Amino acid sequence: MTGNSFGQALRITTAGESHGPGNVVIIDGVPAGIPFSVDDLLPDLARRRPGQSKIVTQRKESDEPEILAGVFEGRTTGTSLAILIRNQDQRSKDYSDIKDKYRPGHADFTFDQKYGFRDYRGGGRSSARETTARVAAGALAKKILAEAFGGRVLGYVTQVGDLKAEIADPASVTLQQVEEFADGQPNIVRCPDEAVAQQMIAKIEEVRKAGDSIGGAAEIVAANIPAGLGEPVFDKLKADLAKALFSLPAVLGVEYGIGFGCVTMRGSEHNDLFTTGEDGQITTKSNRHGGMLGGISTGLPIVLRAAVKPTSSLPIEQSTVTSSGEATTIRTRGRHDPCLLPRFIPMAEAMVAIVIADHWLRWRAQNAWSPGTE
Amino acid sequence: MTGNSFGQALRITTAGESHGPGNVVIIDGVPAGIPFSVDDLLPDLARRRPGQSKIVTQRKESDEPEILAGVFEGRTTGTSLAILIRNQDQRSKDYSDIKDKYRPGHADFTFDQKYGFRDYRGGGRSSARETTARVAAGALAKKILAEAFGGRVLGYVTQVGDLKAEIADPASVTLQQVEEFADGQPNIVRCPDEAVAQQMIAKIEEVRKAGDSIGGAAEIVAANIPAGLGEPVFDKLKADLAKALFSLPAVLGVEYGIGFGCVTMRGSEHNDLFTTGEDGQITTKSNRHGGMLGGISTGLPIVLRAAVKPTSSLPIEQSTVTSSGEATTIRTRGRHDPCLLPRFIPMAEAMVAIVIADHWLRWRAQNAWSPGTE
Amino acid sequence: MTGNSFGQALRITTAGESHGPGNVVIIDGVPAGIPFSVDDLLPDLARRRPGQSKIVTQRKESDEPEILAGVFEGRTTGTSLAILIRNQDQRSKDYSDIKDKYRPGHADFTFDQKYGFRDYRGGGRSSARETTARVAAGALAKKILAEAFGGRVLGYVTQVGDLKAEIADPASVTLQQVEEFADGQPNIVRCPDEAVAQQMIAKIEEVRKAGDSIGGAAEIVAANIPAGLGEPVFDKLKADLAKALFSLPAVLGVEYGIGFGCVTMRGSEHNDLFTTGEDGQITTKSNRHGGMLGGISTGLPIVLRAAVKPTSSLPIEQSTVTSSGEATTIRTRGRHDPCLLPRFIPMAEAMVAIVIADHWLRWRAQNAWSPGTE
Amino acid sequence: MTGNSFGQALRITTAGESHGPGNVVIIDGVPAGIPFSVDDLLPDLARRRPGQSKIVTQRKESDEPEILAGVFEGRTTGTSLAILIRNQDQRSKDYSDIKDKYRPGHADFTFDQKYGFRDYRGGGRSSARETTARVAAGALAKKILAEAFGGRVLGYVTQVGDLKAEIADPASVTLQQVEEFADGQPNIVRCPDEAVAQQMIAKIEEVRKAGDSIGGAAEIVAANIPAGLGEPVFDKLKADLAKALFSLPAVLGVEYGIGFGCVTMRGSEHNDLFTTGEDGQITTKSNRHGGMLGGISTGLPIVLRAAVKPTSSLPIEQSTVTSSGEATTIRTRGRHDPCLLPRFIPMAEAMVAIVIADHWLRWRAQNAWSPGTE
Repeated sequence: MTGNSFGQALRITTAGESHGPGNVVIIDGVPAGIPFSVDDLLPDLARRRPGQSKIVTQRKESDEPEILAGVFEGRTTGTSLAILIRNQDQRSKDYSDIKDKYRPGHADFTFDQKYGFRDYRGGGRSSARETTARVAAGALAKKILAEAFGGRVLGYVTQVGDLKAEIADPASVTLQQVEEFADGQPNIVRCPDEAVAQQMIAKIEEVRKAGDSIGGAAEIVAANIPAGLGEPVFDKLKADLAKALFSLPAVLGVEYGIGFGCVTMRGSEHNDLFTTGEDGQITTKSNRHGGMLGGISTGLPIVLRAAVKPTSSLPIEQSTVTSSGEATTIRTRGRHDPCLLPRFIPMAEAMVAIVIADHWLRWRAQNAWSPGTE
Repeated sequence: MTGNSFGQALRITTAGESHGPGNVVIIDGVPAGIPFSVDDLLPDLARRRPGQSKIVTQRKESDEPEILAGVFEGRTTGTSLAILIRNQDQRSKDYSDIKDKYRPGHADFTFDQKYGFRDYRGGGRSSARETTARVAAGALAKKILAEAFGGRVLGYVTQVGDLKAEIADPASVTLQQVEEFADGQPNIVRCPDEAVAQQMIAKIEEVRKAGDSIGGAAEIVAANIPAGLGEPVFDKLKADLAKALFSLPAVLGVEYGIGFGCVTMRGSEHNDLFTTGEDGQITTKSNRHGGMLGGISTGLPIVLRAAVKPTSSLPIEQSTVTSSGEATTIRTRGRHDPCLLPRFIPMAEAMVAIVIADHWLRWRAQNAWSPGTE
Repeated sequence: MTGNSFGQALRITTAGESHGPGNVVIIDGVPAGIPFSVDDLLPDLARRRPGQSKIVTQRKESDEPEILAGVFEGRTTGTSLAILIRNQDQRSKDYSDIKDKYRPGHADFTFDQKYGFRDYRGGGRSSARETTARVAAGALAKKILAEAFGGRVLGYVTQVGDLKAEIADPASVTLQQVEEFADGQPNIVRCPDEAVAQQMIAKIEEVRKAGDSIGGAAEIVAANIPAGLGEPVFDKLKADLAKALFSLPAVLGVEYGIGFGCVTMRGSEHNDLFTTGEDGQITTKSNRHGGMLGGISTGLPIVLRAAVKPTSSLPIEQSTVTSSGEATTIRTRGRHDPCLLPRFIPMAEAMVAIVIADHWLRWRAQNAWSPGTE
Repeated sequence: MTGNSFGQALRITTAGESHGPGNVVIIDGVPAGIPFSVDDLLPDLARRRPGQSKIVTQRKESDEPEILAGVFEGRTTGTSLAILIRNQDQRSKDYSDIKDKYRPGHADFTFDQKYGFRDYRGGGRSSARETTARVAAGALAKKILAEAFGGRVLGYVTQVGDLKAEIADPASVTLQQVEEFADGQPNIVRCPDEAVAQQMIAKIEEVRKAGDSIGGAAEIVAANIPAGLGEPVFDKLKADLAKALFSLPAVLGVEYGIGFGCVTMRGSEHNDLFTTGEDGQITTKSNRHGGMLGGISTGLPIVLRAAVKPTSSLPIEQSTVTSSGEATTIRTRGRHDPCLLPRFIPMAEAMVAIVIADHWLRWRAQNAWSPGTE
């Protein structure tokens, strides 16, 4: 059944495969009058793009987006907005040998089970190529957050294999730190702890040379988000954020705030105590709650983490079966990421931004008005 | 905006507060002809009930459900099914002192921020009392799974504080192991590793006596689930399951399969290799993928874990502020769970069962038919 | 699949049968702080109630609603609101003879085709008894409209058989005119053209004595509705209003503004010309467009009409078949309405009010904010 | 808020304006394996196209659709399917004078009220150009109906002004009768009553020469549709069909079966009596119920009628106001349809086919399985 739409008040709907004509997203519910053009899409698409550095896949994709609808004279019209990103470097030959084999860790087998057959070229609809449409929509969601209340969403890599970054204050990490080292060189692994980042890059190179891949973790922070977003009881903000991140390829775990760390804690050490800040606003002394209580935002930074598995496609030989069940082996000849994390960051930011923009509009529908106030 | 409905083809909608007249759930999309009565609801409601053992809250709730609609002559009619569970032991006096204070870790502050005021009696809508409606709906979802393809969903506690159970094979744990010890005594902590379970019970008692609470983790297993369930790209089965679990109170993290353990793995050790089983069916040699690839079920057991925070309500004094921002202290005089995990199990099972039943019906809509087959 | 929910930002979900324990509605998305109690429900429930006059069914129903959730200290809390209306006068014996026969014009046959069997008592879920839940929800929707912008929704009967009322100005009809004659006697047919109303009453009595029933038409007017409500392109206000009215039992046609009268008109006589009113506001000189252009409200009164078929249940004998296809006859021994129109009015008002309240909240989500304004 | 998606199990989402780059539709929930290509789209797009005859607008549009996603090797894949139809003959100059004037009968005023500004080129999103995306989706829906159970949907013009066709048996009208006269000449008005069709054509020509436009009515018939489709209580088949037709531009009224004719009927003459056909199947002796009882299909032909207003754009001068409220006049210099009906037919067929395909999939989800049958 339908599964290609996401969001309630702000809803994105996508279509597109790895090697078809292109990927398209329709974004519905966008407030009118927001300045928006193709230029707003380019930075995040560039961060997601293959071939951006030596530690990601060397596929070439051009990602030239076209706005098909919903923008007039440089501003959103309020009607549905569509963006098309054509596929270009398709090299179908790379994939023809996987037509009848199930790649370990991929969706080939499950697509066949579900649909009876599949577009086997590059994974078809199950390829991470579809996230280009999400990243485009996320760029617009980020603009809504910025225009509406100065909100911002930023992600970064916190772990690759055993290498773990030290992040003192998630909300103070800057986009520049994520994208550049102090010397102006590109931070190709997108980890703001520069010393660890250099080790991560070396590790990924080593793994790549071994024909292998490696997992990692990312943290996504939404800062300057107003209190009150999130809908009891099922559409809690934490629930929609978790769904958003789990809907991305390769995500095996999500946590927020102290996350799995809560398992070994006592209530007396876990609870964030309320206090009144210097500005007279009620806040908490700590943020183990990751910016959400009862599934509703508290006004503190929203802090999420996702576990991302090692890339399933490997240049080394793996045993598997054909679609008729015969034993065989497979070796991925395509150009794949030795570590998904650097390119995962803009995808995760996009999904988080979309959820928060959606919930802000939902909040406006029900909560921005009280009887007697207008 | 609306947030009290969950599911697409099978949809539950709930209402109810801790201390109002009752909690009600409407379940829509139920296939007709399924034998169903109040007796089907009682076992899981009993497992969720306060007062069931010395290590849970001693509140008394009677949980006598009434089926208001959708069942005729002992079978579901196919039209919307409603269940009402009245509240009885309400003791509003216990809560009157929290009217103007924000309980640490609770949704009091965020409800005020969102709605301008709140039903402060026992947490109102943010109380875990609302999960009684989910558990009732989950009992029906379990029946659907059982009737349709012999599917079953079972949860158990895997960790309380530092105490961690050893579970050799998640799919082989039985309800009896979860509910009873070998000697027939009730397994009040719902951990099937009996030695660790006894330690957990002692730990929870110790924490309770200290006026404190403790966190933990649970594993939920869905076995005998057909391959092909889950909708690319947003309504992946893993995404909807994660949302389902994160929508429950106190859940700070969710993972499936190898989960956060993937972060330190290489692709070559992480991938589950396909093989053909003795029955001629394609399967995988291991189940690090937790029963889902590309967000679609593979036919292997679906294995999820959730991190549950320590109960926020504490009998010991905590500092906080009043709703007008003045510093104060609070001490919970109500009867609360020293550890949420034992009662969390039926809630989590219910949500997992609802998601899978929903996705099975969604699968039927689109995938159970092919051109030329009828 | 699910079909018992209606609305997006304000959503009602219902369950209940004619002869089950009761009917329940959950209303989600209600703004917080609206004064609301059982007393707000009683007037419209009384207008819908059987037995209210000699020209409607003489069944006795008590319709004592209970608010189960969502109201605290006399105000809506913003969380989901539930209302239960128990069934009381059930007299199942009246219906036992229809267990195996298909009543002409009813849903007995189609329910059997769809679900395999049916709750045959009084029509079960297909009985108009379910509209009691809608009317309760409509009473709340009307309060939202009134609180938010002074909006109001009023319906009345315009035609019974050949008898057609003259209504000079739909928007100036008052509730008092609909409910009472000039002499204070109840206007039991709910037609504000008093002379025609008296003829209608006589006609309905005549039809009832003949053991027959008669059709009619109703007009529903929503006045003081702001411009800008309605969502291109599918959720046009006219489309959602039409769905709302067609979702009611016995409605065979809906039109708005000039409606089917447009078929024979030329554009030059049909178009409503824009002008600037004395208050400086842009308006139109006429309202053939029924308050909506492009599916969006213009600020003029929204005027809809519905065709309601003659009651299908008849005391006179009709030929039909049994569920196994054998020829038989049927005669309805229950107490049925000789004309559905008088009791249709509150149902239609409720559905129209729900749609407009929903669209107002949807408008708030997207349109009540512009970049740079906050 | 979102309003550009339609359907539940089969959902279409559209974007596009009259003079933007193009119109796009994403169709979600399509069963896999249905043969589908651009060739399937061309016939209905040609029937909708401007410039197809002397009695429709002479705008040139090329309507060359491109399938962007969801089809592989000539068959639907089951994942979301996207179709793009670029705009070509845009002649923006024709519309520049309406930038600051409100065209009578159009959505210019309401779009400004709703969004603060509008894409004024050719009506932007409110132009009937958007229906090209619906017609493309409808072509796929028709294929689903045909493949699944041999269902078909056909529309035709029944009235233009006072000229009314005689249609003896709606379900026996053929596509050939609608598209061609007996002599093989194109039936440019799409009325299968040839004698009346010729008069209609003459009438439309006369109206066009007078610089005016004229209204009309269409009938849409869905034949060979299985019993049991439609979801009580809100998503009745009649309700979703009515919404579908009212969502089209210019529709002011919808009825099914006997429609508004029921107003003057008695129950004894209105009820369709059940009987057993020669094939042993239960059916009714007549079809005043238009193929639906209780909002669920009966298996008889579904017969709907829509009232379509005269085109609002007129070459003759009409008085109006500017967006700042000053009196002015307007004369449409673009090329418009003197009567919308001939091009309305494929739009209406598309919406009806989409609703029925959606409800068939919904039926499959819940009703195509019974306990114990698999």
